[in-house]
Amino acid sequence: MSNAQEFLDLLKHSMEVSPEGYMKSYSGLATFFRAKYRPDWETGAPLDVALVGVPSDLGLTQRTGARHGPREIRNQSSNVLYYNPLLMMSPFGKLAVGDIGDVLIPSPFDLKLVAEAIESTYQRFVDRNIIPVSAGGDHSVTYPILKALGRKEPLGCIHIDAHLDLAGELNGTDLHHGCPFIKGSREGFIDPKRTVHIAIRDPYVLMETYGEEVGMTTINIDRFYDLGVDAVAAEARRIVGDGPTYISIDIDALDPAYAPGTGTPVVGGITSYEAKRLLHGLRGLNIVGADLVEVSPPFDSAGITSLAGAQLMFELLCLVVENRLRSQSIN
Amino acid sequence: MSNAQEFLDLLKHSMEVSPEGYMKSYSGLATFFRAKYRPDWETGAPLDVALVGVPSDLGLTQRTGARHGPREIRNQSSNVLYYNPLLMMSPFGKLAVGDIGDVLIPSPFDLKLVAEAIESTYQRFVDRNIIPVSAGGDHSVTYPILKALGRKEPLGCIHIDAHLDLAGELNGTDLHHGCPFIKGSREGFIDPKRTVHIAIRDPYVLMETYGEEVGMTTINIDRFYDLGVDAVAAEARRIVGDGPTYISIDIDALDPAYAPGTGTPVVGGITSYEAKRLLHGLRGLNIVGADLVEVSPPFDSAGITSLAGAQLMFELLCLVVENRLRSQSIN
Amino acid sequence: MSNAQEFLDLLKHSMEVSPEGYMKSYSGLATFFRAKYRPDWETGAPLDVALVGVPSDLGLTQRTGARHGPREIRNQSSNVLYYNPLLMMSPFGKLAVGDIGDVLIPSPFDLKLVAEAIESTYQRFVDRNIIPVSAGGDHSVTYPILKALGRKEPLGCIHIDAHLDLAGELNGTDLHHGCPFIKGSREGFIDPKRTVHIAIRDPYVLMETYGEEVGMTTINIDRFYDLGVDAVAAEARRIVGDGPTYISIDIDALDPAYAPGTGTPVVGGITSYEAKRLLHGLRGLNIVGADLVEVSPPFDSAGITSLAGAQLMFELLCLVVENRLRSQSIN
Amino acid sequence: MSNAQEFLDLLKHSMEVSPEGYMKSYSGLATFFRAKYRPDWETGAPLDVALVGVPSDLGLTQRTGARHGPREIRNQSSNVLYYNPLLMMSPFGKLAVGDIGDVLIPSPFDLKLVAEAIESTYQRFVDRNIIPVSAGGDHSVTYPILKALGRKEPLGCIHIDAHLDLAGELNGTDLHHGCPFIKGSREGFIDPKRTVHIAIRDPYVLMETYGEEVGMTTINIDRFYDLGVDAVAAEARRIVGDGPTYISIDIDALDPAYAPGTGTPVVGGITSYEAKRLLHGLRGLNIVGADLVEVSPPFDSAGITSLAGAQLMFELLCLVVENRLRSQSIN
Amino acid sequence: MSNAQEFLDLLKHSMEVSPEGYMKSYSGLATFFRAKYRPDWETGAPLDVALVGVPSDLGLTQRTGARHGPREIRNQSSNVLYYNPLLMMSPFGKLAVGDIGDVLIPSPFDLKLVAEAIESTYQRFVDRNIIPVSAGGDHSVTYPILKALGRKEPLGCIHIDAHLDLAGELNGTDLHHGCPFIKGSREGFIDPKRTVHIAIRDPYVLMETYGEEVGMTTINIDRFYDLGVDAVAAEARRIVGDGPTYISIDIDALDPAYAPGTGTPVVGGITSYEAKRLLHGLRGLNIVGADLVEVSPPFDSAGITSLAGAQLMFELLCLVVENRLRSQSIN
Amino acid sequence: MSNAQEFLDLLKHSMEVSPEGYMKSYSGLATFFRAKYRPDWETGAPLDVALVGVPSDLGLTQRTGARHGPREIRNQSSNVLYYNPLLMMSPFGKLAVGDIGDVLIPSPFDLKLVAEAIESTYQRFVDRNIIPVSAGGDHSVTYPILKALGRKEPLGCIHIDAHLDLAGELNGTDLHHGCPFIKGSREGFIDPKRTVHIAIRDPYVLMETYGEEVGMTTINIDRFYDLGVDAVAAEARRIVGDGPTYISIDIDALDPAYAPGTGTPVVGGITSYEAKRLLHGLRGLNIVGADLVEVSPPFDSAGITSLAGAQLMFELLCLVVENRLRSQSIN
Repeated sequence: MSNAQEFLDLLKHSMEVSPEGYMKSYSGLATFFRAKYRPDWETGAPLDVALVGVPSDLGLTQRTGARHGPREIRNQSSNVLYYNPLLMMSPFGKLAVGDIGDVLIPSPFDLKLVAEAIESTYQRFVDRNIIPVSAGGDHSVTYPILKALGRKEPLGCIHIDAHLDLAGELNGTDLHHGCPFIKGSREGFIDPKRTVHIAIRDPYVLMETYGEEVGMTTINIDRFYDLGVDAVAAEARRIVGDGPTYISIDIDALDPAYAPGTGTPVVGGITSYEAKRLLHGLRGLNIVGADLVEVSPPFDSAGITSLAGAQLMFELLCLVVENRLRSQSIN
Repeated sequence: MSNAQEFLDLLKHSMEVSPEGYMKSYSGLATFFRAKYRPDWETGAPLDVALVGVPSDLGLTQRTGARHGPREIRNQSSNVLYYNPLLMMSPFGKLAVGDIGDVLIPSPFDLKLVAEAIESTYQRFVDRNIIPVSAGGDHSVTYPILKALGRKEPLGCIHIDAHLDLAGELNGTDLHHGCPFIKGSREGFIDPKRTVHIAIRDPYVLMETYGEEVGMTTINIDRFYDLGVDAVAAEARRIVGDGPTYISIDIDALDPAYAPGTGTPVVGGITSYEAKRLLHGLRGLNIVGADLVEVSPPFDSAGITSLAGAQLMFELLCLVVENRLRSQSIN
Repeated sequence: MSNAQEFLDLLKHSMEVSPEGYMKSYSGLATFFRAKYRPDWETGAPLDVALVGVPSDLGLTQRTGARHGPREIRNQSSNVLYYNPLLMMSPFGKLAVGDIGDVLIPSPFDLKLVAEAIESTYQRFVDRNIIPVSAGGDHSVTYPILKALGRKEPLGCIHIDAHLDLAGELNGTDLHHGCPFIKGSREGFIDPKRTVHIAIRDPYVLMETYGEEVGMTTINIDRFYDLGVDAVAAEARRIVGDGPTYISIDIDALDPAYAPGTGTPVVGGITSYEAKRLLHGLRGLNIVGADLVEVSPPFDSAGITSLAGAQLMFELLCLVVENRLRSQSIN
Repeated sequence: MSNAQEFLDLLKHSMEVSPEGYMKSYSGLATFFRAKYRPDWETGAPLDVALVGVPSDLGLTQRTGARHGPREIRNQSSNVLYYNPLLMMSPFGKLAVGDIGDVLIPSPFDLKLVAEAIESTYQRFVDRNIIPVSAGGDHSVTYPILKALGRKEPLGCIHIDAHLDLAGELNGTDLHHGCPFIKGSREGFIDPKRTVHIAIRDPYVLMETYGEEVGMTTINIDRFYDLGVDAVAAEARRIVGDGPTYISIDIDALDPAYAPGTGTPVVGGITSYEAKRLLHGLRGLNIVGADLVEVSPPFDSAGITSLAGAQLMFELLCLVVENRLRSQSIN
Repeated sequence: MSNAQEFLDLLKHSMEVSPEGYMKSYSGLATFFRAKYRPDWETGAPLDVALVGVPSDLGLTQRTGARHGPREIRNQSSNVLYYNPLLMMSPFGKLAVGDIGDVLIPSPFDLKLVAEAIESTYQRFVDRNIIPVSAGGDHSVTYPILKALGRKEPLGCIHIDAHLDLAGELNGTDLHHGCPFIKGSREGFIDPKRTVHIAIRDPYVLMETYGEEVGMTTINIDRFYDLGVDAVAAEARRIVGDGPTYISIDIDALDPAYAPGTGTPVVGGITSYEAKRLLHGLRGLNIVGADLVEVSPPFDSAGITSLAGAQLMFELLCLVVENRLRSQSIN
Repeated sequence: MSNAQEFLDLLKHSMEVSPEGYMKSYSGLATFFRAKYRPDWETGAPLDVALVGVPSDLGLTQRTGARHGPREIRNQSSNVLYYNPLLMMSPFGKLAVGDIGDVLIPSPFDLKLVAEAIESTYQRFVDRNIIPVSAGGDHSVTYPILKALGRKEPLGCIHIDAHLDLAGELNGTDLHHGCPFIKGSREGFIDPKRTVHIAIRDPYVLMETYGEEVGMTTINIDRFYDLGVDAVAAEARRIVGDGPTYISIDIDALDPAYAPGTGTPVVGGITSYEAKRLLHGLRGLNIVGADLVEVSPPFDSAGITSLAGAQLMFELLCLVVENRLRSQSIN
């Protein structure tokens, strides 16, 4: 980017806060990365990428609070600047990127209604060719997203998490936060052979052995460190290949020192640098959507979990924007 | 109590922690007020009063976390001593008082199953003539309790809260935390004419006018201060009379300065001294059960909400024990 | 309000979040009281009352952080419901009330530029006959507001604070947070004889004796409790009379137990109930603007200061709306 | 005080931080109220009043941490200004008031050594006619202070606390934090008939009945509110009369909402305004020493307990200085 | 583990909370890992492994609070699941593992009495062939444990800590938290040649050179990173060999980012992943007891220190159980 | 150091707290590392190294609070011991090292006045041949320090930070916290060819390309991890060579997990171990001054940022002392 001023001029059109204000992280309503607030996304100017909050945490079984995730990630995202110095790109300026607000959660009491509302919203993104980058909410929000995005064609899936999330029905429902990838796979929205689980350290062997049977790959935390982060990224790229791919990050993939504010923390996770580097290693994949889930502000400390969540969501946004720009230039 | 040593000897039989240890608030597993842990309450020695945790917060509509209430109230209750200096009595020593553990919550996803499990547990208390003093959980746990305790005869009800909790169905259920007293009354478990709501400051006029129609009394926060706490207690006594009466305290009756850790805080509440004095003014009523709900530890600060909850639960315990002793001496 | 449904229907047009969503305090972008976001207030539909954030804290001399006030007050304001049960009114539904966002602070380094930007924005409110209800920021934001609102006619002023704020120049500026009322009075924007300072407990006798000389009234904290809150309200009404009046609340008027999150806390203040009751006692005055300042989230605990600030700002909004409705019905 | 500038000039000689700096609460090493640091109090210029830290908490039986009290009270005391607006006086300027640092605690393992070290230090204050105003530490530090100050003549004692502190030996020692006033009285350092306990709400009836037998007065929390704070102050004045008197404040006299950071919190206490007003009501007594104890920073929240402790210590300092000035003018 | 259901059935007999409840981390009294509460360990069914709390922190010289460790570790341990996915084993199901409660601390004032009480309790474990896995308390609790466990035969010792803990007498006692390994070695309860100190970064060269003289090994933090965690584990295995070995972990071995809640934090420590991997590398050793000490909840943030402590205690439990099972199958 | 007692004797003369007390981290006024308080540094005994607080944060553009840095770093520095076990040296004992207090900040409103006051103070250090080791304050304090120290000869500069700090004028000033190194270089106080920026991860490419043009070296975070910390240290040594060199550490170089309390946190930073090891790798350089800036206590959690800041400041002190001792032995 040779001309900073030119870039700043471009930026003015993407930001909710005026150009004089966007350097001030405390100023103005908090939108994701201070992007334009676009509640009119269906009726207003076309949108390429939607930043979406999904404030539902009914799928949690232990510590709740992820419903407060979107607000606090928005708040902390003001501390993330508009330019990615390691990827040397900005997700703003060239595409229409907007914060469309939160998915309307119809009920805090009924997982089925919640899942339907999410699916329906994301179907409308698909219909308008808008790529969604989402902030949860708990991990149960991912299944209805996969359902909408993977309906035409099963997606590859890069899943970064402390837990495998291949659990079965619990207390009468299979829509809880431990199910998105088993349901997504069984129902054909993700392709198990193009699915990889990274940083896992939960008691997965007690879960159904579905993952192995259908050909998913698991890189548990020991393997993660034995391989090193760059090799893990390479392995993930190999697994998902060129097809449409979804990335889902559970913030509890990070160690509790980096992400105390989450519902089911597991000691012994990766660092935030490793998570960023891993994502940078996924450049060039055909990413058609992504989410960052399980940030639970009531259990956070000093906002560091929301800040880490915001940063990883920003990295996801960069990957998504880059892919869209590339595919546009091809077509 | 003329003889401290005699009392301390009595006490030894009531405490989970040994006599040398019960002065140390940090020592031993946390039971309510360090009372004996009695998971064997149905099969072991008979119990007069059960201290019960009800860790369900599915009935909340805004900020959750009350599911963590019983544990933290237990933890802070170690700071509450075994003697009530203002009532000049101890709830321990003369009756069998035990911590029976938590009601088993069958599902975090289904309010109906939760309500059934609570009702069923409390029915077993009724069957064994055990008086329950409970710690929530959110206020939705009170309806099934009322159902079990008020089945034979509608109860009088002293309800101390920022909110009226006479709301109707919301998002498809009337089992949420705003309903216990309208449901309890409509279904005949509480007697509306013997029901009084104290310290109210929520937008109650928008709720159904059910309360007024059926003869409930509301002492809102302005009236509370205009009357003064002693007159409020007298008015409550007058309303409930001599019949069997239930006391339900929502910790959000206290101002957020005293109880930040709660789901729907309302600025401008009463102090903890006023709450204690109000309860002391209720001595001699025929209290057949009581609860303290809506302590939400994830939103607490320095444990003060749990500590205030523990203290108020202790005052409830004193009232309940005194009534049982009186009724025993009569019979 | 006889018809709750009718009211709820009205409400739908005032809220940023859709009607199904506005019961959920965690959902959607945080605007003040979930009012419509109206960054288009100058070009879009006319507005009666503007909710405004003024995120500047350069006027502070001790602990900063009030620049983060507007965001956190917005966030906590979702816990304040749309109806005032003690005044039995809602500020929404009948007037156009919107959150216009934050005043753009041109520089965090130059108090003069900040004051000019604030004054200029509020002049535009005056020009459009919009009543501003503001959230600071530190108390230095009040002087430029008074300058804009009091230009035509000096305003009466009800000032609730731990400090007199009649200090002189400090470190080369008289625009710091201890000056708004001496500057406002000296320059003719407020009428000292119609000015009252309430709840004061700072070392005011060392300040210039300007206040007494020009006929301001001070009700210090001892006098506040000697009179009682209702008499204080009556005295304030008597002093400001029927003329146009401004109310300015520094959150440090509350005791640090109620408002730890502020820049210059002073032990021994009033309770939040007393503050609400005082404001209720000011009904019927000709309030032409109001602010709530000095909430400093980095020093807060469990959000109680922001929550108290939001509640008091809501009370101010109710007073302002009631006055506007009354004056409209007269004219 | 007619001349602010004159006063400020006086002040320069009393403050550790230079005159330009003393308005900045964050600047410079934290001494109590930014008074001159006087570790040379025995060899340097004479001192009238010593501000002293006593960082020992070995006398605690439940939650420790009061050893950190002096540092945090010093830190927060920078937020307390040098002038008392309600008493209309400053403790600085006319007498030599200095922060002499902390009593050197010889061992964290041996209460007897600690008590001896404290007594020895305070004996040196007595020898030099220096009045000590102290910050604990836990309440066990008061006994050795009383021993040094009351050696010549038993002191009257105003004791403000949630607990009576008339307990006997526990775990082999009678030097723990529940003993100072029974030991002080039994050994003749305080005069029980001139001793009053205020705001008490612990299970005192289980303690030895020593207090009643020897003629001490107890104003428990109910009596406190029945009388009102001004009458309580009057009663305390009547009890201690004109003789030399010591004031000891346990911060847990305040409600946990005002003082969460303490070792044995008791719900239902007084407010910080009431504590200040009570102290103001004690003006004119012959106060020869005072302490503020049991601030436990690890359990505090947002520093409010340390801030309240600093403010009450400041009020004690004002009383002490006023008394010394009066006695000097007499002699 | 081929059959998850079979395992879950086994589990039911090991858990305090009923099978339906054990998935809910907030439900029921907190025991270590929700294991059965076994205060009847001496009179009830035989026990193989005792989970023990030792709530004494009198041995600390700086920041206290470790007395609250056992309760909070129990509380957070509910977030640790019953299966170790990296070791692919569960400590439950095959052996009788129970939480026996806390060692009764006879006095918070006398280190000698505390040490005697601990030693006596652990002697009773030895007599019953019960392996103890303990949670402190400060590090002073380890010496009496070593005394009981190493009486027959000196133990090998793997000591993971920021500090060497080979200090001499301080303030008149050699029972403080810096002494366990010098006393244990001098008195013959541990074998210095089979002792290794790992992750050390305190000013050890100032300590007595006892360690080197008697043949202990120190792997300081630089050496830890130069070798890598797997080589460190191998070196530790080599040093302790096949003999009976004790593992003692001071949580301050972790960096303060991972473990802020501790008494003497030292910046620049290891991560929690490294600590887990180090322990996994110790599989197959003859571990006869283990402890995790110095978790100080009052200085913690978001519970991460207690959670890390719980996880490391779980890893110790797995090692101990595996060793007992192996030795049983041999004998 | 063969003789611990001898060293401890030396130490007594360097510590503010008496020898019996310096083991107690909570005791006495907080000076940096408990060094002697030397406000008389210009008139008293000569000083070799000055520990200095610079409590100004007016240069911040986002989150303020660094003005509270010096006090909290002093407070936490009591947890850092007087001996560096990895460098095997103590900075105390051989040179006169004292805490001279804070630079007097003349105004919180005027960056120019602040910069002049800092420069003037440091010029006095230069004049007296005192080496300053400073704690900020925000990074804007470094420019005037460089101006004083680099006046005779441009300094080499090792700059460890998340941000390049080569920004231009913003909101009318080039004295804000993003400018120190561009101004220092342009004005000839640092030598760009002998300047290296380490751990950078801000959007530097948008900054002026000044750094590259004038020959500065940037080791961004990816390069940091690709090289490894020892190679980074070697590269830094190569760049600065033997000439006089300044080290400036912005605490946000650390990841927010290690340093949440800072004004512009950037996710994905280095660990505190890596920072210590990097500094150890800089031994033997000709360090003529150093600072540690941007610790912002209001945003900290559990004091870990202040503690990390204190530790890194201690490492800087060791480097500075070692260099002065070496240069003294040469001359």
